[in-house]
Amino acid sequence: MLKVAIVGATGYTGMELLRILVNHPLVRVSALTSRKFEGLPIDSVFPALKGHIDLVCEPLDFDRIAEKSDFVFTAVPHQTAMEVVPHFYARGKKVVDLSADFRFTDPQVYEKWYQPHGCEDLLREAIYGLPELHREQITKARIVGNPGCYPTGAVLALTPMVREKRVDLSGIVIDAKSGVSGAGRDPSLGTLFCEVNEGLKAYKILEHRHHPEIEQELSRIAQEPVRTIFVPHLIPMDRGILSTIYVKLDRKTDIKSLLALYAKSYDGEFFIRLCPEGEYPNVSNVRGSNFCDIGLKVADDRKVAVIICAIDNLVKGASGQAVQNMNLMCGFPENAGLESIALFP
Amino acid sequence: MLKVAIVGATGYTGMELLRILVNHPLVRVSALTSRKFEGLPIDSVFPALKGHIDLVCEPLDFDRIAEKSDFVFTAVPHQTAMEVVPHFYARGKKVVDLSADFRFTDPQVYEKWYQPHGCEDLLREAIYGLPELHREQITKARIVGNPGCYPTGAVLALTPMVREKRVDLSGIVIDAKSGVSGAGRDPSLGTLFCEVNEGLKAYKILEHRHHPEIEQELSRIAQEPVRTIFVPHLIPMDRGILSTIYVKLDRKTDIKSLLALYAKSYDGEFFIRLCPEGEYPNVSNVRGSNFCDIGLKVADDRKVAVIICAIDNLVKGASGQAVQNMNLMCGFPENAGLESIALFP
Amino acid sequence: MLKVAIVGATGYTGMELLRILVNHPLVRVSALTSRKFEGLPIDSVFPALKGHIDLVCEPLDFDRIAEKSDFVFTAVPHQTAMEVVPHFYARGKKVVDLSADFRFTDPQVYEKWYQPHGCEDLLREAIYGLPELHREQITKARIVGNPGCYPTGAVLALTPMVREKRVDLSGIVIDAKSGVSGAGRDPSLGTLFCEVNEGLKAYKILEHRHHPEIEQELSRIAQEPVRTIFVPHLIPMDRGILSTIYVKLDRKTDIKSLLALYAKSYDGEFFIRLCPEGEYPNVSNVRGSNFCDIGLKVADDRKVAVIICAIDNLVKGASGQAVQNMNLMCGFPENAGLESIALFP
Amino acid sequence: MLKVAIVGATGYTGMELLRILVNHPLVRVSALTSRKFEGLPIDSVFPALKGHIDLVCEPLDFDRIAEKSDFVFTAVPHQTAMEVVPHFYARGKKVVDLSADFRFTDPQVYEKWYQPHGCEDLLREAIYGLPELHREQITKARIVGNPGCYPTGAVLALTPMVREKRVDLSGIVIDAKSGVSGAGRDPSLGTLFCEVNEGLKAYKILEHRHHPEIEQELSRIAQEPVRTIFVPHLIPMDRGILSTIYVKLDRKTDIKSLLALYAKSYDGEFFIRLCPEGEYPNVSNVRGSNFCDIGLKVADDRKVAVIICAIDNLVKGASGQAVQNMNLMCGFPENAGLESIALFP
Repeated sequence: MLKVAIVGATGYTGMELLRILVNHPLVRVSALTSRKFEGLPIDSVFPALKGHIDLVCEPLDFDRIAEKSDFVFTAVPHQTAMEVVPHFYARGKKVVDLSADFRFTDPQVYEKWYQPHGCEDLLREAIYGLPELHREQITKARIVGNPGCYPTGAVLALTPMVREKRVDLSGIVIDAKSGVSGAGRDPSLGTLFCEVNEGLKAYKILEHRHHPEIEQELSRIAQEPVRTIFVPHLIPMDRGILSTIYVKLDRKTDIKSLLALYAKSYDGEFFIRLCPEGEYPNVSNVRGSNFCDIGLKVADDRKVAVIICAIDNLVKGASGQAVQNMNLMCGFPENAGLESIALFP
Repeated sequence: MLKVAIVGATGYTGMELLRILVNHPLVRVSALTSRKFEGLPIDSVFPALKGHIDLVCEPLDFDRIAEKSDFVFTAVPHQTAMEVVPHFYARGKKVVDLSADFRFTDPQVYEKWYQPHGCEDLLREAIYGLPELHREQITKARIVGNPGCYPTGAVLALTPMVREKRVDLSGIVIDAKSGVSGAGRDPSLGTLFCEVNEGLKAYKILEHRHHPEIEQELSRIAQEPVRTIFVPHLIPMDRGILSTIYVKLDRKTDIKSLLALYAKSYDGEFFIRLCPEGEYPNVSNVRGSNFCDIGLKVADDRKVAVIICAIDNLVKGASGQAVQNMNLMCGFPENAGLESIALFP
Repeated sequence: MLKVAIVGATGYTGMELLRILVNHPLVRVSALTSRKFEGLPIDSVFPALKGHIDLVCEPLDFDRIAEKSDFVFTAVPHQTAMEVVPHFYARGKKVVDLSADFRFTDPQVYEKWYQPHGCEDLLREAIYGLPELHREQITKARIVGNPGCYPTGAVLALTPMVREKRVDLSGIVIDAKSGVSGAGRDPSLGTLFCEVNEGLKAYKILEHRHHPEIEQELSRIAQEPVRTIFVPHLIPMDRGILSTIYVKLDRKTDIKSLLALYAKSYDGEFFIRLCPEGEYPNVSNVRGSNFCDIGLKVADDRKVAVIICAIDNLVKGASGQAVQNMNLMCGFPENAGLESIALFP
Repeated sequence: MLKVAIVGATGYTGMELLRILVNHPLVRVSALTSRKFEGLPIDSVFPALKGHIDLVCEPLDFDRIAEKSDFVFTAVPHQTAMEVVPHFYARGKKVVDLSADFRFTDPQVYEKWYQPHGCEDLLREAIYGLPELHREQITKARIVGNPGCYPTGAVLALTPMVREKRVDLSGIVIDAKSGVSGAGRDPSLGTLFCEVNEGLKAYKILEHRHHPEIEQELSRIAQEPVRTIFVPHLIPMDRGILSTIYVKLDRKTDIKSLLALYAKSYDGEFFIRLCPEGEYPNVSNVRGSNFCDIGLKVADDRKVAVIICAIDNLVKGASGQAVQNMNLMCGFPENAGLESIALFP
C-alpha cells in the first residue's frame, strides 16, 4: 500500500481526495495537515468520514509528513503551494499539486496572473497533469501540476478539433458554468447560500485566471497561438461544470464526421464519454465521478459547431484527476479508485 | 377601473399576471378561466392569493367572459391561443396574447417552427409587444403578441449595437440560461425537482423555437438578415434568464463608448437598467420585477464584446411585459402596477 | 410623508425594510447607515434597488440621522442596539428595534441568554411588537422590540389554544424549520452555499435564544408558566419558517371546533390566514409577504393536535412586522405598504 | 458471481440499486425490466451509467428473468409487487421487495392503509428487512420486505429506548423531513421543481402509510402497543431524511447514560454511527451512503429527550438496505458493496 499524505485536507478538494483515497485499493492515507483544524480528528471536521478513517489534522512539519508518506498531495492555495512543494521534492517524494503553481510553462504568464514565481526550477520540471494529453510524461513525472477545473473541461472538449486545426483558432468562445464548490470553503459574502441560491451571474468576465491556462494548453496542442473568449458563470448547485463552446469550422462538416473525429481521438480513454448524436451532457450524470462527458452539435449551415462538456469540478476538475495522475506516476491502473458511478439524483 | 379577464389563469404566467394585476391601481381582475381547475376558487389553486382575490375558475365561455371584461390576457398554449383570441377580438376586446401565436410577421416562419397558422388575418394586425422597440404601435394595437422570454432578453441586449450595425451580424452567439418556471406547470419528467436540481444542461441546441423569433426582431432592427447561434440552458432555480452574448465589433471600441451608446439608446426607458463599468447583472437583482439589467465588457483587443442581460422570465419575459403592453394599449402610465422591487434574497 | 431612517441597512433585514418602505405610500426613506459599506450608494450594495432609491450609506452620527428623520428602525446586532436606541429616544424619535435587546420583560432572562442589559429603563418602556397580541400598547409606544422570527410563528400559532387553556401547557413541542436568511449576512462557514445546500440539520437544540422569548409570550398569554420543547432546523432555502407544533388537548376535541376557535380568535386580523380543513400552509405561499398562514389537524383519538404555521422570516418574522408596528405607532393603516402578494414560484 | 435481476429498474430506487450493484464485488447485474423504457439501453435512461453496464430494459417475462438470474429485486409500486413476487418465488429465487407489499405482519393493517392483500401466504413468510433488528431471520429468508424510508430512520432511532421501555410509549412525536426523491420518478404537479423549490410543507399529516409500519415495528420491539404522532415534511433537496423525535423519559436521565445505552445497543453495527455528545446528524453526511447517524439531546429537566436521525432515503432508506439484506440472504459480508463514503458537498 502506498502511503499518501494530504497537505491541506480540510477544504473541498481535500475532502474529495479523502473520499476517493479512503476506498482506493492500493493506497493508505497516512497523514493529513490543516492549519485551521489542527489537532481535530478529520472525522469531526467532515463527519461523512466517520467509520472510514481515524487520522487527526496535524501541523505542516515537513520531516514528519515525509517520514510517514511516500506520496504527497498539496491542496493549499497558490503561492503557499510553491513554498511547500520543494520541501517534499527535496525529501524524494512525488507530488501532485492542486494549486495553480505548477501549471504554467512560462513563469511570465504565471507572474502576470498571479504573482512572481519563486520556484522556477521545479516549475520547469513539473508536468501539466491532464492524462488524456500528457500521459507519457506524467508517468515519469515527480511533480505534477494538476489542471484547473475550467481548463480540464474546456481543453478536453476542444482538443480533437484544435489538434486537427478544424476550427478557427482565433475566435473560440467558451461559456462555462460552475457549481459553487469551485470557489472553495473559505467564508466569503459571495458564496453565502442566500447570495448564490436563486441567483445567476457571470464573473471575472475575460479576466479569469484559468483563461491563460486554457490558452497555454490549446496553443500547445495546435502548435500555434490559440485565442479564446472565456466567460465563467456561477450556478446555484454544489458541483459540476458545464462548458458550452462555440467554434467556427474550417470547412463545412457534418455531425457524423465530427463525432468520428472525437471517437478516434479519445479511443480507449476510460474517462471520456462521447454522447451519441442528439444527446448531450448534463452535470448530474458526472456528479461524484471522474468522467468527462462530451456532446456535439453542428449548425444547419454546417459551419459552426457547439461542443458541450460536463465534468464534476471536484473530481475530474480536481481531486479525481489528481488521483488519476498519482495512479500514472505510481504505475497503478489508471482508474484504480476512480470507478464510482455518478450519484443521481 | 379596467375590467380584465385572464384566460388560462392557472399556469405560472397566469399566476404571475394575477400577482401583478391584483395590486394594479387601475385594474380589477373580473374573470378567470381554467380547464384543469374549473370550478375551484383561484385561491385554492394558488393559496398565495388568499385574502387578495375571490374569483372562481370558470370554463371558457366567450360571451360570458367578454361580458365581464374590457381587456383579455390569453395565457394558453400556442395553437389554443389562435383559436381563442379571434372570439374576443370579434367582441371588441383588446387582447395581449402570451403564446407564440401572434409574434411572427411571417406565417411561413411560424408554420415551420410550430404548425400551420389558422388565423393569418389577426396575425397581420398583431403587434410584437416589446415596448422599448415598438411602443408607438403597441399604443394603438388591438392585439399584441407578447414576446418570448428568451427573445425579450436577447433582443433588448443587442438592439443598440445591431441598430447601429456595430457588430458582425452573421456571427452573434447567444448563450442563454433559464430558470425552470420557463418550462411551464404541466407535469413532465424533465422538470421534476430531482431531475433538475443539482443538474445543468443545454437543451434544444440551435433548435429552440425562440431562435427564429430572435432573428426576426434583430433583422427588423438591422433592416437586413441577422444570423445568431442560440443555445438555451436549464438552471436549477425558479426564475430568471441570464443571456451571455458574444459579438464581434465592426471596429476597435472601448467600453466607455459602448456604454454611452447603450445609455443614449435606452435613455428614458424605466425598465432598462445599465450596469456601470465593471458591474454586471445577476438574475437575483430582477427576481419578481419587470427590470432588464444589462452589463457590457470589451475584450483587451477591443474587437469582441460580451453583453450580459438579466430578466425575470415570468415578469419582463412574460406577465410583467404583458401588463406593460396593456398599460400602453389603455393609456395608463407605462409602469403602473410594475414598480415592485426585486425580492432579494 | 414620514421620514424614516434605517440604522444597519445592509443586512438582509435592512434590505427587506428598504424593499417594503421604498414603495410605502406614507413614508420616505431619508437616511441609511452601514459600517461595512459606509460611503457606498445603497444601490451598489443591493443592485435590486437601482432606480428606486438614491441614498448613500452614512456613518452612524446620531445628530445627523435624527435631524433627517422622524422615525428610526434599528437593524443592528443585539448589544449594539441597546447602545444605539437611547440616542434616538433622547432625541424624541420613535424606534422599532429589530434585535433582541428590547423584547424581554425580565432583564434577568435577557442576561441569561445574551449578556447583561445596559439599558433597563428603556427595556421597561419597550413594547413587544406582535400587533396581533399587543396592538393597543404598540399604538402608544415610543419603543417597540420587534419579535424574533421563530417566536412570531410559534406564538401566533399557539395563542388561541393557550389563551383558552385548551392544551397541556407543560409539554408543547415546537419543531421549527427555517430558511438560511435567518442566519444573517455575515460570512461564516456554516452558511456557505455548499455547507447548507442538499443538507438538513437541527441546531441549537433546546438551546436557541428564541426559546425563552417564546415562553415569555406564551406564559403572558396563559397567565401561568408555559413550558415548551423547541428545536430549530436549517433548511436549504432562502426564506421562510414552517413551525410544526404538537399539543395535547385538555379534552377530546374535533377539528371543526378548533378551527372555529382560531377563526374567532383571529377575526379581523388581516395578516393571519387560516387554512380550511384539510389544507395546510407552505412557506412558498407567504414568501415575500407579511402573512402568517395557520393550519390545524386533530389526531384520530381527538386528544392531540398538530398546528402548522408558515411565515416569511424576513417579512412577518422581521421587517414586515417592523413596518406593521411603525404603521400602528404612527396612526397609519396597519397594512399600508404591506399588501404585496407572495412571489410564487 | 451472483446473478441479480432488477424488476422496475428505471425509478430512483432502481437507479440506486444499479449504482450500488454495478460496483458490488460479488454480484453481476444480469437483467433489468421496465415497462416505460422497454427496449432502451439502461445507459440511455440513466446516462450516469455509461461505461459501467450494458443491459437493455426488457419486458417482465418471468421465465426469461428467472433463467438469467439467481436473485431478484422488485422495485415496482405496491400491489404490482404482490403480483410479481410469487412468480419468482415459485421459480426458486430469493427476492427483496422494495414496495410495501411484504412489510406488514397483519394483512388487515395492510388492507386498511393500502388495499386487500392478494398474497397472504408469502406475506406470512416474508421477513421485515431491517438487519439491525432482524438479522438472523433475514439470513434465512427467501422473501424480504424492505422497510419504508421513514420507518427505517424512526425505528432505528427509537429502538434502544423503546426496547428498554425508557420512554412513554403512548406519546412519541416523530417529525420527519424528507428530500424529494422519496416521492418517486413519476411526473406529478407536486414534485415539479418550481412547486418544491424554495417551498416547505408538511403533508399527509397523521395519515402517512409509513405510520402503521413504524408502529408495527416499535410495538414488536416493546412487546406492547406503541403510539406515535408522525408528521412528514417535504424539503427542497434531492435526498435524505432527518427525523427529529421527541420522547418523554420514564425517569430523570442524563445524556451520558443515554449515549451509553445507544452505544451498547448498537455495538458492532457498521451502519449505525452515534454522534458524540454535543454533535448532531446532518443528512449531508450520509448522502449516497448506507449509514444511519443518530444524535441525542436531553432537556435541562432530564425528563425529555430529543433524538435526531439522518439517513439517505434512497440508500439506507431503500436500495442500500435492500443490498444489505441481499448480502445477508446470500452469506456475503454484510457491508459488501456498501462502503462508499457520503458525497459532500
